[in-house]
Amino acid sequence: MNGAEAIIRTLIDNDVRVCFGNPGTSEMHFVAALDRFPEMHGVLCLFEGVATGAADGYGRMTGRPAATLLHLGPGLANGLANLHNARRAGTPVLTIVGEHAAGHLPLDSPLTSDIEALAGTVSGWVARPSDHAQLTEAVVAAIGSGGVATLIVGADLSWSDGARPAGPARPVSHARPAADPEAVTLLRSGRSVALLLDGDALTEAGLAAADRIAQATGATLFCPTWPARLRRGVGVAAVEPLAYRAEDVRSQLDGVRHVLSIGARPPVASFAYPGQDGRLLPPDVSFHELCDPASVAALADEIAPGVMHRTVPAGPVDLPRGALTADNWPFVIAAQLPENAIVCDEAITSGLRTLPVAFRTAPAHDVLGLVGLAIGQGLPLAAGAAIACPGRPVICLEADGSAMYTLSALWTHAREQLNVTTIILNNRAYAILRAELDRVGVPPAAGAPAGRGSAAMIDLTRPQLDFVALSNGMGVPATRAETTEELAAQFAAAVSQPGPHLIEAVLTDQPR
Amino acid sequence: MNGAEAIIRTLIDNDVRVCFGNPGTSEMHFVAALDRFPEMHGVLCLFEGVATGAADGYGRMTGRPAATLLHLGPGLANGLANLHNARRAGTPVLTIVGEHAAGHLPLDSPLTSDIEALAGTVSGWVARPSDHAQLTEAVVAAIGSGGVATLIVGADLSWSDGARPAGPARPVSHARPAADPEAVTLLRSGRSVALLLDGDALTEAGLAAADRIAQATGATLFCPTWPARLRRGVGVAAVEPLAYRAEDVRSQLDGVRHVLSIGARPPVASFAYPGQDGRLLPPDVSFHELCDPASVAALADEIAPGVMHRTVPAGPVDLPRGALTADNWPFVIAAQLPENAIVCDEAITSGLRTLPVAFRTAPAHDVLGLVGLAIGQGLPLAAGAAIACPGRPVICLEADGSAMYTLSALWTHAREQLNVTTIILNNRAYAILRAELDRVGVPPAAGAPAGRGSAAMIDLTRPQLDFVALSNGMGVPATRAETTEELAAQFAAAVSQPGPHLIEAVLTDQPR
Repeated sequence: MNGAEAIIRTLIDNDVRVCFGNPGTSEMHFVAALDRFPEMHGVLCLFEGVATGAADGYGRMTGRPAATLLHLGPGLANGLANLHNARRAGTPVLTIVGEHAAGHLPLDSPLTSDIEALAGTVSGWVARPSDHAQLTEAVVAAIGSGGVATLIVGADLSWSDGARPAGPARPVSHARPAADPEAVTLLRSGRSVALLLDGDALTEAGLAAADRIAQATGATLFCPTWPARLRRGVGVAAVEPLAYRAEDVRSQLDGVRHVLSIGARPPVASFAYPGQDGRLLPPDVSFHELCDPASVAALADEIAPGVMHRTVPAGPVDLPRGALTADNWPFVIAAQLPENAIVCDEAITSGLRTLPVAFRTAPAHDVLGLVGLAIGQGLPLAAGAAIACPGRPVICLEADGSAMYTLSALWTHAREQLNVTTIILNNRAYAILRAELDRVGVPPAAGAPAGRGSAAMIDLTRPQLDFVALSNGMGVPATRAETTEELAAQFAAAVSQPGPHLIEAVLTDQPR
Repeated sequence: MNGAEAIIRTLIDNDVRVCFGNPGTSEMHFVAALDRFPEMHGVLCLFEGVATGAADGYGRMTGRPAATLLHLGPGLANGLANLHNARRAGTPVLTIVGEHAAGHLPLDSPLTSDIEALAGTVSGWVARPSDHAQLTEAVVAAIGSGGVATLIVGADLSWSDGARPAGPARPVSHARPAADPEAVTLLRSGRSVALLLDGDALTEAGLAAADRIAQATGATLFCPTWPARLRRGVGVAAVEPLAYRAEDVRSQLDGVRHVLSIGARPPVASFAYPGQDGRLLPPDVSFHELCDPASVAALADEIAPGVMHRTVPAGPVDLPRGALTADNWPFVIAAQLPENAIVCDEAITSGLRTLPVAFRTAPAHDVLGLVGLAIGQGLPLAAGAAIACPGRPVICLEADGSAMYTLSALWTHAREQLNVTTIILNNRAYAILRAELDRVGVPPAAGAPAGRGSAAMIDLTRPQLDFVALSNGMGVPATRAETTEELAAQFAAAVSQPGPHLIEAVLTDQPR
């Protein structure tokens, strides 16, 4: 068995059964080996950023890594932005990067570059095995690392015979953690506490436990603006997402004196602004971290024994009418959301104001957010989530500007016939930049054509992108909606049919 | 004047007047400053790889850098593959990467990452200025570095006032180099010498000098398979490109005992294969490098005084007929090539066999090749070349698979109304991988469904990409050609009209 075959056998034995790939010559033995292992599902992506984003989506939904197969340094480079997002989301992803054979490397042939330097910026674990024994042990170690792991595999290791697969890693058993005594003391102190939830605390069970604590102590519950994965909707305990803008977060936290983090980092502004502090907790608010975020259930049993968690009730559905706007489309989609959907949210500015409100009372669903803020995540994430959960409908809420980064993910939606319905929120601008430019507040220079130069870098109307044509060009049937009624009818039709669909929702207002 | 304005003023004073950008919040002061400097042409790209590839095209055609404006680490990551190509091509490119304000960096907000590590993989020069004086001096130094230079600019440096532009760098005067005595001795020795030309030796003047040497000494002339820039066609002295496959290069060099490099590196195989040496020069062939590649003209005057250079004569045009194939399309395009065109060649397998033959007798043109082998270069390169040379027609020869990496460059073609005619060579496969898989030669396993797994990673027919729809979706008018006659008519129409066009050439055979 050659090295490539031993890698695949080891992956399968460790329950890694999907590989999102965009291979090249140095990975051909891996590709050839796929013929011998039908248990490994090779998914072709037309760009590496699609492969890495799909692996992120797969990992978020299963808790297990998918493999990605990338071609040398430039292939990894193309996949880095979505690996950045995966790292920020804490997703397990196993990135396999093909490298030149050891004897070929010193020749500095055209595609040679410093793969370790690239990998190090996004990976918690990087290795370049130098023999077959190291190779398959490294596969097991990479999977066990639990985050973004990069394995650099020389073509000579892949093609040469005599490799042996490494067995499955021994399963790790987790004892149920005990309640954190400091957290118990804080919560019983009667002081004004906010719980900031992330990670496992945003599952249905985690939210239920947090809600019990909230009832027993008066604590308020918050989560990040765009968490990696959040259970949300009717029948689920509620949590309030922090706002995107720093000033709005400060209002949300007004009066809070203590923040108890359950798996969350201290909230900070995404960007700096002149004269503003990027830390969103005022200096007089103390930040406590639960030593083991998994102890939230034990904490609830200690603090709130016998308290039942509350859930969001179904509300009245009042469909908006008329032209589509950034504020009304979320209500159209939320009202018709299929049960137990997976929502990939890269709506950005088009979802800032009303999306959390509308989806709070939608049928229960998982939402996957843009933790790392590197745009171009949504369409690939949807592909990976759909492959991870073939029985569940996937809804991708995608802004026009960010869609263009990894648009060829649509081709993978079509090739794999994934149950993904994509809504392109087309406001025909980099609307977030328009808003940011306003905040910068530079007055136009005297005599200069006001705003000509800057508008050229933000406006997307010359020419207008036709997402129906783009989608059809990649094999995904598409329609265009300009009113809430059209969007409602088109969305209902799309989710009632198997396979991928795309709806271009043309928004008539410009969010500011 | 704030830092962003001082950067732009310094760029303009150093004759950098084009900025290919995909900015974000941390670059908003730079964007705002564009309103004050109408001399700076800001070109919006919908993906960073388009911006960096366009800067490569601009730099190859002008010899001067364009600026690119990218957003933090993930933005740079998206642009790295085409910066890799620019580095390999030796193109000057000034990459400006916006970074968080200094005070914001320790907060590790979502988009924070190690920008230096990324930049170091492609840049000959990297700096992160810490005050205004360093900032504008760094701009001048970056331009002076002559290669890919990356300038990391904190948002606080951009937005704060009190910056002053640095003046233009002092021009460097180059004396005409003398003939290299060792090269003279070698060329007069009567031994079997091949000249391997690259860089300035591939200009019209460089090729003329090399041809004079060839006539006087019997030396043969070669250049890389895909050089950064080569003058070619009727009226130009001829040079033979090395083949892509190692075995073919060995045939070309059969009998050669000495290779004299004029600006070229020793030829190596792009990839390693089991049991093959990646060095393409046999051990008994000696490799000599000219100490100053710019001395080729002096060398010709020394070796071949009074010898006139030969040029390629116009040949008979014999248009192929019928269905389009990988071997006949180059003759259709070459025969109708507009005078003094710029040809961006990312045809890859579809251009391996007959493209060099067909274009050798085309009207004189410059061809820009895929030096770094990171695919996704062609469409962005064409955008940059067209902006560099607005009076010249640009022809982009683009393979289907590689087109999908940076397809949104078409939108920039449309937005800037560039005179670019793109020919998509659609063989509906990653044909180069099919060929490489054959060379790998792994027999299918007994009982395994032969080739199912591997074919899934190579075939592009499920679903078929519709490049006419994709092009229309980005505002570039497009047609589809399935015969040589259709391609000829559509190409003639496209180049006769201003603005961008795209022709999807459907190839009926599969190159192997």
